Amino acid sequence: MTNDVVITLVDRTNYHLFQPLLYQVATCGLAATDIAQPIRAILSEHTNLTVLLDKVEGFDLANKHVVLDGGPLKYDYLVLALGGQTGYFGHAEWEQYAPGLKTLDDALRIRSRVLLAFERAENEMNTAEHDRLMTVVIVGGGPTGVELAGSFSELTRTVLDREFRRIDPTQARIILIEGGPKILGHLPPELSDSALRQLEALGVEVRTSTQVKNISEGQVELVGGEIIQAGNILWAAGVSASPLTKKLGVPLDRGGRVKVNPDLSLPGHPEVFAIGDLAAVLQANGKPVPGVSPAAMQMGQHVARILTQEIRFQASPADRPAFKYHDKGTMATIGRSAAVAVLGPIRLTGFPAWLVWLVVHIFFLVGFRNRAAVMFQWMYSYFSFRRSARIITYLPRQAGDRPQAEGGAPVGLGFGSFNAAPAPTPPR
Amino acid sequence: MTNDVVITLVDRTNYHLFQPLLYQVATCGLAATDIAQPIRAILSEHTNLTVLLDKVEGFDLANKHVVLDGGPLKYDYLVLALGGQTGYFGHAEWEQYAPGLKTLDDALRIRSRVLLAFERAENEMNTAEHDRLMTVVIVGGGPTGVELAGSFSELTRTVLDREFRRIDPTQARIILIEGGPKILGHLPPELSDSALRQLEALGVEVRTSTQVKNISEGQVELVGGEIIQAGNILWAAGVSASPLTKKLGVPLDRGGRVKVNPDLSLPGHPEVFAIGDLAAVLQANGKPVPGVSPAAMQMGQHVARILTQEIRFQASPADRPAFKYHDKGTMATIGRSAAVAVLGPIRLTGFPAWLVWLVVHIFFLVGFRNRAAVMFQWMYSYFSFRRSARIITYLPRQAGDRPQAEGGAPVGLGFGSFNAAPAPTPPR
Repeated sequence: MTNDVVITLVDRTNYHLFQPLLYQVATCGLAATDIAQPIRAILSEHTNLTVLLDKVEGFDLANKHVVLDGGPLKYDYLVLALGGQTGYFGHAEWEQYAPGLKTLDDALRIRSRVLLAFERAENEMNTAEHDRLMTVVIVGGGPTGVELAGSFSELTRTVLDREFRRIDPTQARIILIEGGPKILGHLPPELSDSALRQLEALGVEVRTSTQVKNISEGQVELVGGEIIQAGNILWAAGVSASPLTKKLGVPLDRGGRVKVNPDLSLPGHPEVFAIGDLAAVLQANGKPVPGVSPAAMQMGQHVARILTQEIRFQASPADRPAFKYHDKGTMATIGRSAAVAVLGPIRLTGFPAWLVWLVVHIFFLVGFRNRAAVMFQWMYSYFSFRRSARIITYLPRQAGDRPQAEGGAPVGLGFGSFNAAPAPTPPR
Repeated sequence: MTNDVVITLVDRTNYHLFQPLLYQVATCGLAATDIAQPIRAILSEHTNLTVLLDKVEGFDLANKHVVLDGGPLKYDYLVLALGGQTGYFGHAEWEQYAPGLKTLDDALRIRSRVLLAFERAENEMNTAEHDRLMTVVIVGGGPTGVELAGSFSELTRTVLDREFRRIDPTQARIILIEGGPKILGHLPPELSDSALRQLEALGVEVRTSTQVKNISEGQVELVGGEIIQAGNILWAAGVSASPLTKKLGVPLDRGGRVKVNPDLSLPGHPEVFAIGDLAAVLQANGKPVPGVSPAAMQMGQHVARILTQEIRFQASPADRPAFKYHDKGTMATIGRSAAVAVLGPIRLTGFPAWLVWLVVHIFFLVGFRNRAAVMFQWMYSYFSFRRSARIITYLPRQAGDRPQAEGGAPVGLGFGSFNAAPAPTPPR
C-alpha cells in the first residue's frame, strides 16, 4: 500500500547534519563525522524512497517540477525543507570577515582559524598584533553565540593552557556582543541573568546593548566609535531562510521566510508545503513560531500526517488541520556543568540544566554509533579536560589568503597575513 | 640538567598524523581526528620544548640556521624528519588525475571523490558513463594499494550494498594494478599469494605484471594499449622524499633521499641528521633500510641517543655508533579478518594475522582517546557492517572542477563534470 507512494529526497550534501552540536565541531569538542550521518544510511530501510544528491536551481510550481542541476524533477506533492543560512541584515560584505555557523564547512573553518590565530600569536613579537590574535569576538547573544563564547573560553582556559611556551592562552579575550539588553533574550530574565553570570565565571566579556556599526578585516567597529581588534570575528546574530525561497514567487517575510497558510502549504499551492526555518507561521498567541529544531520536527510530522490522510484515505484538502506548535521547553549550554533550561514550569541552571541538555542532545542525535561516540567524547573531555578534534585541517579561501600551492603544502595554512616575525631563536 | 637543552619542533601542520591508518580515513572507516593528535598536546609535559607551526623554506647549513616562512631559526644540532610524498616517477602531471595518499587532505579528498562517483552513478542514465563512475583503479600493489583495494571493495559490498535504488554497489569494479609479478613483493611468496587470494575473495580484480603507460582525466592507459575508464584513479605506486632535500646541497639518491653517513648524519655536517623516509641508508646485508614506520622510529631513537651522549656526557662525534635496523616483522591488512603478517620466523594469514595487525596498530596509535575511539569504531564496524565516516565534505579544486560559489553552496560538490542526465522522474 505505502509502496504506491514514491518519495524522492533531494539534498546537496550526502549527510544529515545535527545542527545543535555544530558549535562543538567549531570548538574542537567533536569530529565532523560525529554529528553527520549519511542520508542513505538513515533511510536505507525505506524501499519506496530514493535519495538524490543534487542541487536545487529553481521551481516551476505551475508545471509541478523542481529544477535540479541534473534536470527537472516532477512531483505531485512538494515539501520544502531547505533550512536557513546566516543572515547579515543587509551587510552581506561582513560575511568574509565574520563567518557564521550553519554548515560543517563553517564549523571546520572556524575551528582551523581560531587554532591558527593562537599558533600565530605564539610566533608574534609585536604586542598589539599578539593581543589582536588572542581576541575572539562573537556577535550575537542568542544560543549559538552563548555556546560558542562559553566553549571557546573553556578551550583557552582548561585545554590549551599548558601547551604554549610564549603566549598564555588563559589571557585570551573572548568577547560576546549583544545588541539587546540581555543575552538569551527569549528566556525568562532570571535564566538570562544566570547565563550571564555563568559566562562571566568562564572569563567571557559580555557586552549587552552594544550595536555593531561595521566589520572589516580583523576589526569590529561599534556604534559609538569604539574599535575592537580581533584575530577572529564570528557572526551569530541572524538567520535568514534559504535564498531559494525568492524563486518561489510567493510572499516572503523580512527574513526571506515563506508566509505559509495555517496548514503550512503555500498560498495558492495546496500541493506545496514549506517547513522548518523556511516557514513564517504564527502561534495561537500571535507570536511567530521560533526557528528551533523542535518546531521544525513538529512541522515535518504535521505535513506527513496531512499527506497520509490525503493519499491513503482520500481526505479533502479543505479538512486540513492548522499547525499547532507545542513549546516543550528551551535550553542553552554554556560550558562544563553550566547551562540554563526551561521545561514547562521547571527552570534549571548550572549542573542540573547541563545534565538535561546532555541527555536531550544525545537522545535526538541520529544513529547508535554517533550517540555512543559523542557520549564517549563528552565523558573523556569531562574527566581529562582535553578536546579531541583540535586539528587544523583545511581553510577554504577567504579574502586576504595567499593562494594555495598546487600539490605543495598539504593544507592551506592561510599564512597570507602572517607577519614575518623576528627570528624565533631558542633562548640560549 | 636536561633543561639546558632547548628543543624547537617545527611542523607545517599542528598535528601528528598516524600514517598507517590513513587509508581508513580515505575509505570511510575512521574520522580524520581519530588518527591525528595535536603536537602540542602530545609534548605539553616537556617544558624545554617549543612547538612552532611554520613552513621550512630552505637551509643555511654553513651558518647553521633553517629558513622558515616566519624567519630564520638558528640551531646547534638539526634533525631533519620531513618525511616523504607521493612519487610519480617523473610523471608529475599524473597527480591531478590520480591522487596519492600521504596527507589527511589526500584522504579526505579521496573519500569525498569516491563517494561522489557513486552518487553520480545513481543519477546517470548513460551506461558507459555509469560503468566508468562505478570503477576505481588503484595503481601500485604495495601495502597502501592492497589496503585501499580491500577496504574499498568491502565498502561497496557490505556497507553501501542496500542503500542505492538504481545502481548496485556490489557491481563496482575495484582494480588493483601492479607492475611487478606479485603484489606485496617484499613479503615471502606464500604470503603474497595468500594476499592475492584474500583480495580476490573480496571481489578485487588484481592485475600483476601490468605497467601503466599514461594517465589522463578518468582513464588509465596500460602498456600494450588497453584503456581502463575509471571514476576514480588512486596512485599508490611510489614514494619520494620531501622535495626540500634538494635545498640541502648534499648527494641524494634517485628518490630524493639523503645519502647519510652510517650514523645518519649528513656528509660534511656531523651536526645535521636525516631520519625516516628522508634517509637513504644500507642494512648490514647490503639492502636499503625500508621506508617503514618501525625503521623511522628506530632512527629517531638512534639520533636521540647520540645527542644525549654528546650534549650530556661530552662524547666525541668520532665515537658515534652506526645505525642498525632491527626488522621486527611486516604486515598488511586486506579487510575484515583478512591480512598477512611476518613476525620473525612466524608467518600468519587470515584472521590471526588480522588480529595481530589490530593489536599492533592500536598500540602504536598516539593518545588514549584515539586508541579508545579507534577500538570502538572497529568493533562497531565489525559487528554492524557499517562505516562511520561516510560524509562528503570538501573537495579541494582539481582540474575540471567548476569554481566554487562564494558563500553559496556549503561545500564544493565538484559537479563540474556532472552530466545533465535525463530527468530523474519518480517511476510512477
